[in-house]
Amino acid sequence: MQAAPLARLPRARYKPGMRFSRSYIPTLKEPPAEAQGVSHGLLIRGGYMRKLAAGIYSFLPLGWRVLAKIENIIREEMNRAGALELLMPAAVPAELWQESGRWDAYGPELLRLQDRKGAHFCIGPTHEEVIVDLVRRDVRSYRQLPLNLYQIQSKFRDEMRPRAGLLRGREFIMKDAYSFDVSEAAAKQSYQAMYDAYGRIFARCGLEFRPVEADTGAIGGSLSHEFQVLAESGEDAIVACDNCEYAANVEQAELAREEATKPERKFGALEKVATPGRRTIEEVSAFLGVPAAQLVKTLIYVADGTLVAVLVRGDHSVNELKLKKLLGSREIFAAGDSDVETATQAPVGFAGPIGLSLPIYADLEVRNLANFVVGANQADAHFRNVNVGRDFRTTAFEDLRMAAPGDPCARCQGGTYKGYRGIEVGHVFFLGEKYSAPMRCTFLDERGAEKPMVMGCYGIGVTRIAAAAIEQNHDASGIIWPMALAPFQVEIVVDQAVPECVAAADEIHAGLERAGVEVLYDDRDQRMGPKFKDADLIGIPLRVTVGKKALAEGAVELKHRRAPEAERVARADAVRKVAERVRAELAAA
Amino acid sequence: MQAAPLARLPRARYKPGMRFSRSYIPTLKEPPAEAQGVSHGLLIRGGYMRKLAAGIYSFLPLGWRVLAKIENIIREEMNRAGALELLMPAAVPAELWQESGRWDAYGPELLRLQDRKGAHFCIGPTHEEVIVDLVRRDVRSYRQLPLNLYQIQSKFRDEMRPRAGLLRGREFIMKDAYSFDVSEAAAKQSYQAMYDAYGRIFARCGLEFRPVEADTGAIGGSLSHEFQVLAESGEDAIVACDNCEYAANVEQAELAREEATKPERKFGALEKVATPGRRTIEEVSAFLGVPAAQLVKTLIYVADGTLVAVLVRGDHSVNELKLKKLLGSREIFAAGDSDVETATQAPVGFAGPIGLSLPIYADLEVRNLANFVVGANQADAHFRNVNVGRDFRTTAFEDLRMAAPGDPCARCQGGTYKGYRGIEVGHVFFLGEKYSAPMRCTFLDERGAEKPMVMGCYGIGVTRIAAAAIEQNHDASGIIWPMALAPFQVEIVVDQAVPECVAAADEIHAGLERAGVEVLYDDRDQRMGPKFKDADLIGIPLRVTVGKKALAEGAVELKHRRAPEAERVARADAVRKVAERVRAELAAA
Repeated sequence: MQAAPLARLPRARYKPGMRFSRSYIPTLKEPPAEAQGVSHGLLIRGGYMRKLAAGIYSFLPLGWRVLAKIENIIREEMNRAGALELLMPAAVPAELWQESGRWDAYGPELLRLQDRKGAHFCIGPTHEEVIVDLVRRDVRSYRQLPLNLYQIQSKFRDEMRPRAGLLRGREFIMKDAYSFDVSEAAAKQSYQAMYDAYGRIFARCGLEFRPVEADTGAIGGSLSHEFQVLAESGEDAIVACDNCEYAANVEQAELAREEATKPERKFGALEKVATPGRRTIEEVSAFLGVPAAQLVKTLIYVADGTLVAVLVRGDHSVNELKLKKLLGSREIFAAGDSDVETATQAPVGFAGPIGLSLPIYADLEVRNLANFVVGANQADAHFRNVNVGRDFRTTAFEDLRMAAPGDPCARCQGGTYKGYRGIEVGHVFFLGEKYSAPMRCTFLDERGAEKPMVMGCYGIGVTRIAAAAIEQNHDASGIIWPMALAPFQVEIVVDQAVPECVAAADEIHAGLERAGVEVLYDDRDQRMGPKFKDADLIGIPLRVTVGKKALAEGAVELKHRRAPEAERVARADAVRKVAERVRAELAAA
Repeated sequence: MQAAPLARLPRARYKPGMRFSRSYIPTLKEPPAEAQGVSHGLLIRGGYMRKLAAGIYSFLPLGWRVLAKIENIIREEMNRAGALELLMPAAVPAELWQESGRWDAYGPELLRLQDRKGAHFCIGPTHEEVIVDLVRRDVRSYRQLPLNLYQIQSKFRDEMRPRAGLLRGREFIMKDAYSFDVSEAAAKQSYQAMYDAYGRIFARCGLEFRPVEADTGAIGGSLSHEFQVLAESGEDAIVACDNCEYAANVEQAELAREEATKPERKFGALEKVATPGRRTIEEVSAFLGVPAAQLVKTLIYVADGTLVAVLVRGDHSVNELKLKKLLGSREIFAAGDSDVETATQAPVGFAGPIGLSLPIYADLEVRNLANFVVGANQADAHFRNVNVGRDFRTTAFEDLRMAAPGDPCARCQGGTYKGYRGIEVGHVFFLGEKYSAPMRCTFLDERGAEKPMVMGCYGIGVTRIAAAAIEQNHDASGIIWPMALAPFQVEIVVDQAVPECVAAADEIHAGLERAGVEVLYDDRDQRMGPKFKDADLIGIPLRVTVGKKALAEGAVELKHRRAPEAERVARADAVRKVAERVRAELAAA
């Protein structure tokens, strides 16, 4: 049978369109003083959001529509992958976090509070503990598995330095999913299903992105991918092979283990040179006329309260994750100025290994250098023609650096890493038994044996996607939304002073609404100039302009936000052409 | 043109149906020990939710679907009424609440917290301050008004005694809307539009409800209606006239100001009688054989630290709101036992006005009594044949009682109040300038004069609707969902042991999905008995049973959850008949 669908399936039925005059889109001429970065400024100027407190924003109707579109794409793909939506509370009792050990481990980003009776709670930044507690109480048998449960929820992380609007906020919307399986093999399948779903989600959002191998961080587990939206403003550095599929966060990227290259060991005479006021690699390199790769940086770290020195080549960066693993430390961070000055007996900027009485860990690449440059542990001085062994000794040579563009690929023969900047919008983790074993989330297998479930967890930053889309899609005039995320698909701009234009625009508006196109109809009693400015700022992908001159010739103007010029289309064709373009652009994503 | 709607309007596209074997519906045989009331127990037993902490629940997939349906009905009707959806943060800086004065006034139900830098926040239980702050920054002109802005959000109120599951929780989902107008007349129109939208929302939810006049409470303002779902288990007492439209919360209900009835003043002799152990109205009434209406209760209150006595007839209740207004107190509450014992020199239960050295406020109805009974301020004793004036004096006679069933209507001639119990699911408030004046939320009118906006605010308890629907619609076996709120519209129960039954059920399942009907397909490898038990508990309105015997005769069974018996329908007609019934039941709401 072919009955029409029933009227009230559980979906939010939005008015497809809105009249600008009856909406609430307070655009601003200037970005607010505190705006950091493109998306932050444009979201505020475009009337998408307003700041309530540091890293905490109200989403105005336009912003809310963008979030709803992102959420619905996520929902559709999660449901398609067999995940089930639920909703856990924001307030989580401390007991559960104490049971997992995260109450003490999580640090000050966890927003903690007490209720009126003095009971301790946190506002859950992720919900592993809550979902494990649910599942361990209600799931007993292998027959009830696999399960993949997800929610879309406002989360809170009390960032020390919230920045750049939605890119690093304190209150933000996240989709978090958790899978439960009977075995590692089954759990890897669940992981792969989420990996695939994430690819579909970000593609449908119209984003240029890349899945990269990543560190498992505070969540834990043994396998992890980040989904990075590529944008120059991205906070994360990524390397990707130009020959094979390998891509990774620089923190995680593998380095090819080459043999030491045995530099020719014609040691020059150690020489102290004056480098007045030259502290950075760039300054010293320029002043001495020595390439950065021939300099060696000496960095002082505090590892669980003890000072250590780390040497890496001037063009490399220390990988703190590797250092932490090497030292087996609970916490490491770069030493403050006063610690550096005490250890080196010199101002900051002139640290070096010669005569330094700290454990010295040197990156493997330092072993390949001869006659390099280091700081002299003395103000305004460096050493040149420095050589390991002759001039100082190291505690150990280890792989201690980040991968860098130009490094040979660790996975394939012959590829080279290229560098990218990315914004992390999704992260999938293979957790194994990290939570299920300590929290006794077990099941009975076919033979009646009790086993811990094997878990994965999967996050998407809903609010961050909105910002990342703008970082990737904008110009000097404003936002250029991908069709799937735009708050409306089409904006009609009409010359409100001309009754014939208003009549034609009304007709096109009605036609587009009948065709199911979402229209923002700028019917404000304003001149065309400010309307165009607002349209460019707001960034709706297609604009239909109904002006006096074209209309007199039976035409209206159609312009894609990305195109330099508008084109004329016959008034009678406008609705059909616009609807076709909307469809085509959605289908292309 | 008649093109099909575009594929990706911003609506959540759920899978219409679900297989029980692949879902997560952990039903329980017994309600948990802590369950209070019908909906609390059934929501947990039916696998709709689980408790995380007192008054804090996780919504499992079935529960989430019910909430999504409620939210979407609310969205559609709010949008239809011209309101615009947005989303404000949960964490609200203390400064805004200090500006409105509510930071001090709100009391311990406000969940307060500090961030890592020591800044004070609350988790906003309502958002008047945040929305006023938004609007005052961006709206300047009468041309930008009216505005009605709403959100659907998880809220937190730190209730002293969370109870009965979703009926009085601590974390709950609320729709809150705020209107801004240029004048009182325009604001009254916005109020009326919301009043009307609320009627449509609760009707579409399939609820039997009643709008009643209400107190404005802590929100403030001058006009207010509650929307009460009628249910015996309701926490709120309501009176409604049997002759006119008037209905009100008993706290707010007006009383007809009748002339004092001048009782015949044949005073009997004051007599002290022994009433050993009889303390309550019921006990004294039964022991002395005197109707409750001939007894007078003496209640001791603490009004801003001072004790006062209040007299009302034995069958009436003190209206604390009226008492508070009369005394002009900031806070009143019933005195504790030790205060009562000190004031009356007697154990609790024997207080009376004779010889009492407190201000005595008596309800007007007490004036109409002669020869009544009061406590003797002495253990195990009451007075009878008591008369005001002769035996004691009052400080004042005032209207101090709640309305009660049987009272004459205050609005019409000749009607009488009937009593109901209700669950408050919505509340509309006319706020006037209560927030806009102190927070300087102003606009410029046509003549350029600056005026405060005139506001209203409008709440709906999303989670409470789910519970109220169950309180109103259940039987001994479980829930009976209204069609519009049911997590699925139809459940198919199949005899999994019989391959022909499975084939027929698969076919009907596919047909219903094609017809857009939402189906829960119980394909579990279980006997029919437990499947029926679960189906009754979960409460999906229509059930299709595919069993061996009926199928052999070319039929399946169709049963409404409310009907005592199933009926047979031809297998070939099943899909059409079921789809028709779903449509009919949705249309009837």
